[in-house]
Amino acid sequence: MRYIMIIDCHGHYTTTPPQVGEYREKQKTALASNPHHVGEKGSIIISDDEIRESIEKNQLRLQQERGTDLTIFSPRASWMGHHIGNENTSRFWTEQQNDLIRRVCDLYPSNFAPVAQLPQSPGVPPEKSVAELVRCVEKMEFIGCNLSPDTSGGYWRDASLGDRCFYPLYEKMVELDVPAMIHVSASCNDCFHTTGSHYLGADTAAFQQLVMSDVFKDFPTLKIIVPHGGGAVPYHWGRFRGLMQDQGFAPLEESALKNIYFDTCVYHQKGIDLLLDIVPPENILFASEMIGAVRGIDPETGYYFDDTKRYIDNNTKLSAEQKNQIFEGNARRVFSRLKISDVK
Amino acid sequence: MRYIMIIDCHGHYTTTPPQVGEYREKQKTALASNPHHVGEKGSIIISDDEIRESIEKNQLRLQQERGTDLTIFSPRASWMGHHIGNENTSRFWTEQQNDLIRRVCDLYPSNFAPVAQLPQSPGVPPEKSVAELVRCVEKMEFIGCNLSPDTSGGYWRDASLGDRCFYPLYEKMVELDVPAMIHVSASCNDCFHTTGSHYLGADTAAFQQLVMSDVFKDFPTLKIIVPHGGGAVPYHWGRFRGLMQDQGFAPLEESALKNIYFDTCVYHQKGIDLLLDIVPPENILFASEMIGAVRGIDPETGYYFDDTKRYIDNNTKLSAEQKNQIFEGNARRVFSRLKISDVK
Repeated sequence: MRYIMIIDCHGHYTTTPPQVGEYREKQKTALASNPHHVGEKGSIIISDDEIRESIEKNQLRLQQERGTDLTIFSPRASWMGHHIGNENTSRFWTEQQNDLIRRVCDLYPSNFAPVAQLPQSPGVPPEKSVAELVRCVEKMEFIGCNLSPDTSGGYWRDASLGDRCFYPLYEKMVELDVPAMIHVSASCNDCFHTTGSHYLGADTAAFQQLVMSDVFKDFPTLKIIVPHGGGAVPYHWGRFRGLMQDQGFAPLEESALKNIYFDTCVYHQKGIDLLLDIVPPENILFASEMIGAVRGIDPETGYYFDDTKRYIDNNTKLSAEQKNQIFEGNARRVFSRLKISDVK
Repeated sequence: MRYIMIIDCHGHYTTTPPQVGEYREKQKTALASNPHHVGEKGSIIISDDEIRESIEKNQLRLQQERGTDLTIFSPRASWMGHHIGNENTSRFWTEQQNDLIRRVCDLYPSNFAPVAQLPQSPGVPPEKSVAELVRCVEKMEFIGCNLSPDTSGGYWRDASLGDRCFYPLYEKMVELDVPAMIHVSASCNDCFHTTGSHYLGADTAAFQQLVMSDVFKDFPTLKIIVPHGGGAVPYHWGRFRGLMQDQGFAPLEESALKNIYFDTCVYHQKGIDLLLDIVPPENILFASEMIGAVRGIDPETGYYFDDTKRYIDNNTKLSAEQKNQIFEGNARRVFSRLKISDVK
């Protein structure tokens, strides 16, 4: 099956050259002797060839193998590490990571479009992330951002996404017309496994925080992507519908689906079939999170677990037109700043 | 459709007479002036008639309306409140709650079988819960217990269930041959909604803690029920299979399904269909959590969201024999102390 264009809305730069990790280690070393260490943005010296090598052998190769065209690309989520250090640590680290994403997209403008990490930090108002969002979108043509609902690395010490402290960020997102993908970083809490229970739990929590808040009333054009197929939400759609009804909220169809989109990072056929059966096609964006959480080949199918395009191809309920929406149309609508000229 | 017997493995006494709440309020008042308050077990004066009224108008009525026979019944989960007060607070409260469950089951021996709350408390080793488990099982003929993976009310400050601090409890469970249902209590963290994101996130986290630990190697006959349809697990079965494989663990079928059971508290047809399609029937126990998390009627079907028997009845893939397993056989196997004479 071939569609006009396949846009993968969820990819992270998980294969960065080693200089990136070295920069981060230097930050940690400085913080070890002084938790209030300010430091400076400094520089990470990486050649274009090094970036090419890190991409062409990995994400670009898999794009070609799987027949996808463009990945909406952001810094490695598990490395965002908002809980590490202080406000300055996160700011400089985030700027470096976003600069690097811009370079990847400059080298492969037909294959990658940039999404920003935000310099969130525990105890620092989300408003402080607005400047980096503006820098990325206005100066560097980024088309969206990743927003973490837990900067404490699995201890959930932050405010809910329904809290007004997030409003300055939402206001700017609306003004710039960019969506946020909800995404936590690594868990430093033994109770949670980063790419399993932590990611999925955060998706579910964030969804519920938002639908049981005033956020979408106050920002009716805000666009939120809940990744990993929405965590537990579609599987428990009846529970969430029932809870909304019990507590006097409007039905999810009215209160949530005008603002919330789910991605397709669900790594088996039956899970994808459920997602496509529960959530309206206009609220689903194709994604694989390649190269990310699960890297192996499923012995039951002989294909990569995260080759999610196959599951959508194989789904028998949706029409070709609906699959086009999921593969391309919805991403163009949600990421309205994605330029046509960026893509083949 | 009619089966030999329908056993609902997941019901809480959510409709207790007001004296129960009053006892708890007195505990809280005493703690407000002295967090180290010890107090005493004291007594909660409730007549048999008051218990009858609280049960007959509610759980018993719904059992009859829905055609279920026996509910495996435990104290109200959201009221366990392990984070409140200290070790003594939880001990006395738990003993009272378990005593009350015993009384319900004495009044309706054909309709309810008792499962214990445990007196877990933050910072107190799980070993300290062994005495109450023994009291309930050996002296009061309880057939299982509820085990919380988070006594901190949504802040996840405890050890993982894979930690050896839980081993004395597992050892006693194995010796007594009683299962534990994983169940958190209310969230006091604004980030989580108790019966939505908190319950489901805890189910998912607990599953992953256990399957990525040595617990089932060290206790090959331990029996664990992950409620609410396993949280996000069946929907993300591919992700969990892939993560296990990436990290060198045995496949879930070998490492998890000899010890873990999922209940059917999934409140819509498509969700139940997925559960029944992913998880082998021998690992599924019928449950509704009635009267619990979601109390309303689904306007799309005209039936209660939590009338989960209907969804299983309506499932077209499983055979009658497999449905019998889910409705009765598996519960008898897992709750091996359930006496035949207890039921009709």
